[in-house]
Amino acid sequence: MKIKIAICGYGNLGRGIESEIAKNDDMELVAIFTRRKPVSTLEIKSDVPVVHMDDLEKWQGKIDVMILCGGSAKDLPVQSPEIARLFNIVDSFDTHAKIPEHKSKVDTAARAGGKTAVISVGWDPGLFSIFRLYSGAIVPAGATGSFWGYGVSQGHSDAIRQVEGVANAVQYSIPQEEAIEKARQGKAEDLSTREKHKRLCYVVAEEGADLVRIENEIKEMPNYFADYDTDVIFATSEELKKNHSRLPHGGYVIHSGETGAGNKQKIELTLKLDSNPEFTASVMISCARAAARMNREGMIGAKTVFDIPPVYLSAIEDDEVVRLLL
Amino acid sequence: MKIKIAICGYGNLGRGIESEIAKNDDMELVAIFTRRKPVSTLEIKSDVPVVHMDDLEKWQGKIDVMILCGGSAKDLPVQSPEIARLFNIVDSFDTHAKIPEHKSKVDTAARAGGKTAVISVGWDPGLFSIFRLYSGAIVPAGATGSFWGYGVSQGHSDAIRQVEGVANAVQYSIPQEEAIEKARQGKAEDLSTREKHKRLCYVVAEEGADLVRIENEIKEMPNYFADYDTDVIFATSEELKKNHSRLPHGGYVIHSGETGAGNKQKIELTLKLDSNPEFTASVMISCARAAARMNREGMIGAKTVFDIPPVYLSAIEDDEVVRLLL
Repeated sequence: MKIKIAICGYGNLGRGIESEIAKNDDMELVAIFTRRKPVSTLEIKSDVPVVHMDDLEKWQGKIDVMILCGGSAKDLPVQSPEIARLFNIVDSFDTHAKIPEHKSKVDTAARAGGKTAVISVGWDPGLFSIFRLYSGAIVPAGATGSFWGYGVSQGHSDAIRQVEGVANAVQYSIPQEEAIEKARQGKAEDLSTREKHKRLCYVVAEEGADLVRIENEIKEMPNYFADYDTDVIFATSEELKKNHSRLPHGGYVIHSGETGAGNKQKIELTLKLDSNPEFTASVMISCARAAARMNREGMIGAKTVFDIPPVYLSAIEDDEVVRLLL
Repeated sequence: MKIKIAICGYGNLGRGIESEIAKNDDMELVAIFTRRKPVSTLEIKSDVPVVHMDDLEKWQGKIDVMILCGGSAKDLPVQSPEIARLFNIVDSFDTHAKIPEHKSKVDTAARAGGKTAVISVGWDPGLFSIFRLYSGAIVPAGATGSFWGYGVSQGHSDAIRQVEGVANAVQYSIPQEEAIEKARQGKAEDLSTREKHKRLCYVVAEEGADLVRIENEIKEMPNYFADYDTDVIFATSEELKKNHSRLPHGGYVIHSGETGAGNKQKIELTLKLDSNPEFTASVMISCARAAARMNREGMIGAKTVFDIPPVYLSAIEDDEVVRLLL
């Protein structure tokens, strides 16, 4: 019997889930939920019902795992606890400082409903996190550095769009080679924020806007840009669409430490992604498989990737996994 | 209360466990077991009792996890099932084709004794295996290639030493750049054994031995060398000691696949190890921590790295791990 998956929210990430679920023979998409009214205005690619979120409860018993594809700022803090009471869920909540609070709320809800909720899934938080944990657990006398890019940061692009006079923007995070080399030498903890990444912004200004003011406002924005060397390049709307509409990303986790009498041990993970949302979707799908199994086995409540035995993510049977992959 | 660890077998790996256990504040070494008679002839670095293996049973209740450091050819097939009946164990059994049989035997023994046995732990099988599993589960439409080296393969060095007229030997496995590039392009499955690795052998011949015959015997040895391009370089005993007595290793796991309409997604793990036995020991130590916790929670029987929730490997508390590493 296939694992019945539903998508909640149909943006870039939701569309990624829709396209990737088809590559997993043990799963099937059964519905897409939206806030859109009327739901008929949402055009989807697959042949499944589009359902309004108000009707979620009616689908209890028909869905094994609901994959939440809303945003971390406004959607997930509300949706994840609400929906985890009714369904097993996977979300990609990535506001790092608020993860403990989110986990606690989702945990209460999921336990009340006897459900399993895997939160903060993607590549970072997610695959990168797992890798930081393994590296540090294996070589405790060492330092880990995480680098993001070359790639488009949606959060930073959104932040630029909030600046008055900005019509559109795309922001690239660019890890610095020199800093990566230092991390490989075990000096990850000595690196400043400015040394690790540069930020490159392509900005479309509204007609007549003050470009100098916009550039300064971007560069001085706290948290997002003030601590970085930031380049701002003004572009036309056509240029942005033509050259910057894809969503590549990637990054590095580098752990460098020592064992014995000064033996260097280096562990490095590299991601090069043509499509950030499709890769994030792919990680979420594997965690949906794990959520279904954990729930069958009575492991309820809020979980993170740290709590999932790796074999639960695979479509291959336990014994076969040992034979094929160990 | 610290996790009480014992070492069984005091070769390179056992010495690695001894040196690395000290870097883990939540653990303490309590004994080293040996087959040596009298045990007083074994010189160790730490201030713990050296005990003969015949006296293993007397130590029940005093050890949380026994880390087995014997070889896969002769020691572990016997020791792991015997000892898993008495203690939680971690072993590094790496004869790949025999892992399912080994797992089954150890499982029966461990269950009979209510113990937890984590088998086939190290970096491959081990960390590389986990990574192959994650990659394939996340991007199923892809191919994974594993490469080993540049580094000393103990198994291959041993095989050369079996050739008549060979006094000593060190064998380096060398992954081929061109093959690594092909794996990055998603063509890992097209690569032949010969394309992926070369083998470089430094050989000390006995006085008067027939060098041509030795070289041919090595190059034609089935499984070990016949399928590879192999270079044999004769060296003196002094040269071997001076230039080839360290045990570096490393390797790559490269997964390259596609999502959506032809979006390439690449995941790559790189290890560069100054000391292979110390790194293997480090992975085993983190798994010993997991074995102790799994046993406390009633998860008995034979387990592999695939069965261990990542957080069980870490000395950091579950909630702190989320805050610090997710």
